[in-house]
Amino acid sequence: MSEFDIIREHFAPLSADAPGAFGLTDDAALTGTGPFVVSKDMMIAGVHFLPRDPLDLVARKLLRVNLSDLAAKGAKPIGYFLGCAWPAGATRDQIAQFADGLREDQAQFRIALYGGDTTRHSSKAGPLTLSATLFGTPPKQGVTPRGGARAGDDLYVSGAIGDAGLGLAVLKKEIRLTPVDKASLAGRYHLPEPRLVLGAALAGFATAAIDVSDGLVADAGHLARASGLRAEIDAVSIPRSAAAGAWIATQTNRWKALAALAGFGDDYEILFAAPPELRRSVMVAAKASRTEVTRIGALKRGEGAALLDETGREIACASQGFDHFGRDGA
Amino acid sequence: MSEFDIIREHFAPLSADAPGAFGLTDDAALTGTGPFVVSKDMMIAGVHFLPRDPLDLVARKLLRVNLSDLAAKGAKPIGYFLGCAWPAGATRDQIAQFADGLREDQAQFRIALYGGDTTRHSSKAGPLTLSATLFGTPPKQGVTPRGGARAGDDLYVSGAIGDAGLGLAVLKKEIRLTPVDKASLAGRYHLPEPRLVLGAALAGFATAAIDVSDGLVADAGHLARASGLRAEIDAVSIPRSAAAGAWIATQTNRWKALAALAGFGDDYEILFAAPPELRRSVMVAAKASRTEVTRIGALKRGEGAALLDETGREIACASQGFDHFGRDGA
Repeated sequence: MSEFDIIREHFAPLSADAPGAFGLTDDAALTGTGPFVVSKDMMIAGVHFLPRDPLDLVARKLLRVNLSDLAAKGAKPIGYFLGCAWPAGATRDQIAQFADGLREDQAQFRIALYGGDTTRHSSKAGPLTLSATLFGTPPKQGVTPRGGARAGDDLYVSGAIGDAGLGLAVLKKEIRLTPVDKASLAGRYHLPEPRLVLGAALAGFATAAIDVSDGLVADAGHLARASGLRAEIDAVSIPRSAAAGAWIATQTNRWKALAALAGFGDDYEILFAAPPELRRSVMVAAKASRTEVTRIGALKRGEGAALLDETGREIACASQGFDHFGRDGA
Repeated sequence: MSEFDIIREHFAPLSADAPGAFGLTDDAALTGTGPFVVSKDMMIAGVHFLPRDPLDLVARKLLRVNLSDLAAKGAKPIGYFLGCAWPAGATRDQIAQFADGLREDQAQFRIALYGGDTTRHSSKAGPLTLSATLFGTPPKQGVTPRGGARAGDDLYVSGAIGDAGLGLAVLKKEIRLTPVDKASLAGRYHLPEPRLVLGAALAGFATAAIDVSDGLVADAGHLARASGLRAEIDAVSIPRSAAAGAWIATQTNRWKALAALAGFGDDYEILFAAPPELRRSVMVAAKASRTEVTRIGALKRGEGAALLDETGREIACASQGFDHFGRDGA
């Protein structure tokens, strides 16, 4: 099984709808007319996904974490470039399963593979290392900035927060819940839902947006810093799933549990700001995109991001979000 | 040293000339007006470069192998997206040295960093794994295809062939030469010269082009297959440097030595086809771009790629080019 066989057999069919991909027979591809919004995220086995995660789900998550970046900007995805560094000894079945996942999400999100690179590590210990560069068209209103929020803006988040982090804990057998709740949470870890329709609907009136990948409080901090403001989040208002609610019920300290949810990463929900006078517009956008949206706080003068209890006191957050280089980094 | 510190300190300055990069404070970037020619190549320590190669040279090679893909299409580079998976324990100095290389080649090729992802392996054994997605504007004559050659076309190659392969052998201490020749060959392995000016000059009249990354014969085979033809290369006509000539002089079998040169990869020269009536135009393009160009053979009816001796007999090539998945692959 040569590199060329793999491309021809598993990846070239995924480029069928990509004009300019040259059937993946070339080293370069041609896009349509730009400008484009572009996102590039990497995923490494053992860091961004579990080494035993099913490879079709890994492939779909790779696309989805990048689609989520486009969603935050209000962009409409078109296609992607894929880079794979497989461990030595990767089998045909593994690559086929990975390609199956790509195919499934390409159909769901109407995107096509434009090009990329298939390589292999020199050893079996070389972890599967993936890179995807997604591109799409910006909304006609212009991309939603990260740093455009104004003091007094409301802060909203889509979907539910903390499920992916709990899902990871489930998969690592760190927490105990009913099988139904566990399956639901693990599913949210494996397959985030990029909020593309909501993101597009928010273009033009959300003043700032970011997807929640590092954790709610951490990403609120990124949005606030870029806007030159402070984000304050009411802990009790953080939207949570029934499964997350079941987990909170098992915890002795409710505030600590809420802070944990707000610290987990990998949710890939959209966190955004909009002026209070546009609350109705936000609800219209949420309804039109069939996406749950919850108002969770506000932007204020100052800096940083804080989680507040019912009395307005700041709750200590153990985790300030996921950082690949950590605090103990070199 | 957090991921954000690294980006702010080492990579954000590299985006200064990239309108739409948002200073690398966002998860997505905005390109200018397309269409674009796009190339994405990965490089893995221990596979595509030596683990001890200086990191500034690794960075420059990463850009150059992608620039070479754009050169073959006649495109003018604009910018790139960068993905880095560092080994656990990567130091600030290593990252700074890598960024220095990027800065140097950004200035040389007038490109800017638009975005990307900085991550870290979970172990020190995780090899440095790099991905770059480069984009540029197609030539106004349209991109030079890989498969547009016609039977009877001449086959040309730029620069000299085999130096990079010999350079790798030098770095692995597999061959003996004078210090000057060794330094010259190692330099050609570390720093290929993307033939951007030549590639642009060939747009509109070269019928097919490819960059020589897998090996001269292998890439001639790719060009021929895409064109539905056979490539025949006169071994004695293959352009070689003085250092490569010195190595050949040490070999007992001259034909075997020439076949070895034609089998090495990593040269990143442009191999292209043009009709015999345009020989003068090819020489004008070569002169205008100050790039040596040598006619090495022709395209014929048939299939495959062959290296011929002076009598027109085919020379056996041990290597058919570099393939990451090899013949013994899973």
